[in-house]
Amino acid sequence: MPLKRFDRPIILGVVGDSASGKTTLATGVARILGEDRVATICTDDYHRFSRAQRAENGLSALDPRSNYLDILEQHLGLLRQGKPILKPVYSHEVGDLVQPQYVLPKPYIIVEGLLGYTTRAMRDCYDVKIYLEPDQDLRVEWKIQRDTAKRGYTRDQVLASLEKRREDSPAFIHPQRVFADIVIQFKRPEGQSAESGARLDVRHILRPTLPHPNLAPLVDAGAKNELSLDLARDHDGKPVDVLGITGSITDQRAKALENLLWDLIPEASHLRANVGEFTDANNNQVVSHPLALTQLLIAYHMVKAALGIHAI
Amino acid sequence: MPLKRFDRPIILGVVGDSASGKTTLATGVARILGEDRVATICTDDYHRFSRAQRAENGLSALDPRSNYLDILEQHLGLLRQGKPILKPVYSHEVGDLVQPQYVLPKPYIIVEGLLGYTTRAMRDCYDVKIYLEPDQDLRVEWKIQRDTAKRGYTRDQVLASLEKRREDSPAFIHPQRVFADIVIQFKRPEGQSAESGARLDVRHILRPTLPHPNLAPLVDAGAKNELSLDLARDHDGKPVDVLGITGSITDQRAKALENLLWDLIPEASHLRANVGEFTDANNNQVVSHPLALTQLLIAYHMVKAALGIHAI
Repeated sequence: MPLKRFDRPIILGVVGDSASGKTTLATGVARILGEDRVATICTDDYHRFSRAQRAENGLSALDPRSNYLDILEQHLGLLRQGKPILKPVYSHEVGDLVQPQYVLPKPYIIVEGLLGYTTRAMRDCYDVKIYLEPDQDLRVEWKIQRDTAKRGYTRDQVLASLEKRREDSPAFIHPQRVFADIVIQFKRPEGQSAESGARLDVRHILRPTLPHPNLAPLVDAGAKNELSLDLARDHDGKPVDVLGITGSITDQRAKALENLLWDLIPEASHLRANVGEFTDANNNQVVSHPLALTQLLIAYHMVKAALGIHAI
Repeated sequence: MPLKRFDRPIILGVVGDSASGKTTLATGVARILGEDRVATICTDDYHRFSRAQRAENGLSALDPRSNYLDILEQHLGLLRQGKPILKPVYSHEVGDLVQPQYVLPKPYIIVEGLLGYTTRAMRDCYDVKIYLEPDQDLRVEWKIQRDTAKRGYTRDQVLASLEKRREDSPAFIHPQRVFADIVIQFKRPEGQSAESGARLDVRHILRPTLPHPNLAPLVDAGAKNELSLDLARDHDGKPVDVLGITGSITDQRAKALENLLWDLIPEASHLRANVGEFTDANNNQVVSHPLALTQLLIAYHMVKAALGIHAI
């Protein structure tokens, strides 16, 4: 492990609402860091109640009270210390916990799920915290797409499930946004429909809680509409940088951004070979520069953390 | 919790071969300490492999390699710190781990099972360590009795299972004996058969790793054959005290020993009310003085540990 200066895993958090793109992002980042050096765990496995029990007690599965959050805290702490855990596993098929899974920490750990930043003790375990906040329309579309294709639901069932959880998102998911180092917003370009096949735009809301790479030279050199970096106020009034990458960015400009990032972490140059292999959760080649660059930017922060830069 | 001077649970270990009387002992001790103040966990739930997997890989369930001993270590450490655990649960019916169980620590924790003293880190978690070593004939009898009555096996199946595990006991169970503070040996009085209905005798091999109560005055005062305390060499040659209580001990002498123990822990006098309720695992009233006094002696050590005497 030539990159590791510290004898503990580097932990990435990926939190966001249902179907906000957590798995796609986590898969892409793991691919760059090297899949054999990454353990990925999902925080949605810590259900305290079976489906039948929830039906009885009326608690949503997203309610922190429906989850063993103290055990999740404990497990994140253990992983951060480099210790193995026996992780609960929730089966959507059975509607209850089944055989737990033995997880050995790897140099990098990705923790993705709905409630990963709920408590202070959890939040203290991460090196990099991402919150995914795609446009609501996009998220609904992704959810229908995934749940009908992979989870055997009808379109109407997915819409009913969204309606049923309408109050859960603002109550339990959205309050975690404020704890992220980077809020990532994918959206369809203005005036484009799903059918147009246009690539998505992305905005990264960058909080000063991470040492973000200096992209200014690159942004200044190019056309503002493809790559932008703007000082702005987040919707809570706090100052942030907003990095914008449009789906229409040229291959050349995307490559320039990629080069800039790699030049900043020369110790990780051997990982460049992994970047060609970007795929989405369906193992399709990723052609979206905004998604690929987003994954690379996150991998950059993970490598930086492994190098100990964040600890200075 | 008027008895607790320390803000952590006091942990009792009960280790011994299959059907050596672990559950009966644990139940009796919990009854004395107050069942609502005791959490009991079984170390035999940490199976790494399902029954089918063991059949394939040829490993015995008693083999440390067949168990998540690192997770057991971790869980004992967490319990000792007063933290909850999500304990695996092995189902004999299913032959695999099923839904885990959330265990909140109580002021007293009893940890019973086959492999509780296997590693140093585990052993360091206990305040009192018991090893049960009944006469082999007695254990076989107990095992047949239990496994035919409660686990649906035939007598022949039980004998076959004992034969199959014949090499496991010396390989994995017996080596833990040396780490116990007290080795407890139940046996049938000389020349008595199971049918005679005679009460069992008991010998406590007392190692100097616990501050044992001074029973000398009581032993000296009475008939040596009912209650004895002898300096001896354990079969490894090490010096030990051997406390003997015969099944034929009179109610009066048993009461005197009981009184002596309670007088030594006046802070726990409110627990005396629990002693009348001794029952065995089948909820039958216990009429065996050796068993009742054994449970009380162990409870005495737990109370002493809670009072912090052992930490001086």
